[in-house]
Amino acid sequence: MSRETLSFPPTSIPPLSPYLPPPNPTSPKPHLTLTYATSLDASLSLAPGVRTTLSGPFSKAMTHYLRTRHDAILIGCTTATVDNPALNSRLESITSLDQQPRPVILDPKGRWEFTEDSQVIRLAAEFKGKGPWVVTTRGKEAEERAGLLERVGGKYLFLETGEGEKGRFEWGDVLRVLGKEGLKSVMVEGGGEVINSLLAEPENRLVDSVIVTIAPTWLGQGGVVVSPPPRREGGPPQLRLGDVSWQPHGEDVVLCGRILRS
Amino acid sequence: MSRETLSFPPTSIPPLSPYLPPPNPTSPKPHLTLTYATSLDASLSLAPGVRTTLSGPFSKAMTHYLRTRHDAILIGCTTATVDNPALNSRLESITSLDQQPRPVILDPKGRWEFTEDSQVIRLAAEFKGKGPWVVTTRGKEAEERAGLLERVGGKYLFLETGEGEKGRFEWGDVLRVLGKEGLKSVMVEGGGEVINSLLAEPENRLVDSVIVTIAPTWLGQGGVVVSPPPRREGGPPQLRLGDVSWQPHGEDVVLCGRILRS
Ligand SMILES: NC(=O)c1ccc[n+]([C@@H]2O[C@H](COP(=O)([O-])OP(=O)(O)OC[C@H]3O[C@@H](n4cnc5c(N)ncnc54)[C@H](OP(=O)(O)O)[C@@H]3O)[C@@H](O)[C@H]2O)c1
Ligand SMILES: NC(=O)c1ccc[n+]([C@@H]2O[C@H](COP(=O)([O-])OP(=O)(O)OC[C@H]3O[C@@H](n4cnc5c(N)ncnc54)[C@H](OP(=O)(O)O)[C@@H]3O)[C@@H](O)[C@H]2O)c1
Repeated sequence: MSRETLSFPPTSIPPLSPYLPPPNPTSPKPHLTLTYATSLDASLSLAPGVRTTLSGPFSKAMTHYLRTRHDAILIGCTTATVDNPALNSRLESITSLDQQPRPVILDPKGRWEFTEDSQVIRLAAEFKGKGPWVVTTRGKEAEERAGLLERVGGKYLFLETGEGEKGRFEWGDVLRVLGKEGLKSVMVEGGGEVINSLLAEPENRLVDSVIVTIAPTWLGQGGVVVSPPPRREGGPPQLRLGDVSWQPHGEDVVLCGRILRS
Repeated sequence: MSRETLSFPPTSIPPLSPYLPPPNPTSPKPHLTLTYATSLDASLSLAPGVRTTLSGPFSKAMTHYLRTRHDAILIGCTTATVDNPALNSRLESITSLDQQPRPVILDPKGRWEFTEDSQVIRLAAEFKGKGPWVVTTRGKEAEERAGLLERVGGKYLFLETGEGEKGRFEWGDVLRVLGKEGLKSVMVEGGGEVINSLLAEPENRLVDSVIVTIAPTWLGQGGVVVSPPPRREGGPPQLRLGDVSWQPHGEDVVLCGRILRS
């Protein structure tokens, strides 16, 4: 991955601002921004682990800008494993580690086998990003990794999984533990399973704003698709956004909105 | 279905014009415009036959404008059956039947059981739309329906199905027969199977332009999804649009483009 710095045009900030965390938050629940880049057929990538170029340079710079506007970036352990992402911001305006977001990885079964060569660990060791917080269940942490996390300023956070069959965390619990740790805002970046579980009913009530980049491409059947679970009998048939703004940038469009409460 | 007339703002025409059929076509192949309205999770409807409101009034008026700019509108027999669509244009500027597009229904197995009460037949009988052309295979036409079609100015067109296992027409054959009948332009409106077969490789080479309306909503898993078949080994991994234009209208965005040849 290239290490060049990025610049984000100041004129592009005002259209995004209404969807960003408030400067003086009053709620104990961290502000949750859901953000992802998608194809016309709702895919995030051709397959888990297949690096897929979807959106253009604006979207990349925007992601790095948005990262500076949130206390944390959250991803699932599959993305952490297969993409080995940096999860810091390379915006040229960043002058101190304080401005970097906290990487948070949801890993209930301890599947993310990070080492000192993992990007997010290496960058934290170089003070180019904060040490990651790995949310896992008691007993699934690895002793030697706990030490590695500590050395780079990260840590394990422990949480019990919910009632669901898959042994996944409840989103309310995740936000509660992050709020207790002092985080006021979280940007959820992916991947597909994380996003779909957050768009489910009633979890989507925890989402404060949505920022989606759409690229004019079809990846074809078999990709990592964003589509929430089927809606319940008797419930509203769609999950709609309100306060919608569409911002074309190069070949892509950026959609901002807030989930309409039914 | 309401029968009110619609108006399309003249200022909205220039951004669409580059993607519309040329005034003096030179190719024997009819100009093919692919158009559909989709959710963020690439669904056309919650399920076949479940009327699903996706896009707003602009999109509706645009569809009726686009219909006046094409010689024909083409749909699959499932859409014809479950939606009972009108397939004419209710644009207020229409003064004669000449300005109406020809409805074309792909129905290789003769599954569309239309009667004089079907919207498209009724409207043709009232001179509010042209009589439909039903593309089918020899032997699958129904005797009594042939008479009904004739009475409203429509007819059966006969075509052999291709080599594929499903007994579907080849798109090249469909366009050839429509071209021979004098049509210079065809707007393909849906549904999912028709669109997906047209976005497949190499059929997508027959598509001249794409006009997609995206509504800020997720329909959830289980809808009628637009996503082309998986791309071939060794082929390009994505099907991208070039000459892209994004036009926000109300809550929706209209995407126009041309498929990039790889
Ligand atoms: N285009 C984009 O914007 C974008 C952004 C990020 C990622 N991606 C792509 O997305 C792909 C990976 O997506 P994915 O769907 O395979 O995986 P993912 O969402 O990154 O990770 C899924 C895993 O996270 C854990 N998880 C998810 N939801 C959870 C919950 N509510 N509670 C606890 N744990 C939870 C589960 O681990 P366990 O199974 O161990 O329980 C689950 O298997 C990659 O190809 C990546 O490139 C694209
Ligand atoms: N949102 C929108 O813009 C929009 C527009 C139109 C329709 N829709 C929705 O789409 C849904 C229906 O879609 P659908 O995918 O179920 O059906 P569909 O595409 O309307 O029709 C599929 C049928 O058409 C025939 N067909 C398709 N491709 C063919 C080919 N290449 N050659 C010959 N025949 C072909 C086949 O008939 P046989 O199986 O008999 O061979 C096939 O089963 C409805 O819910 C409708 O409301 C939405």
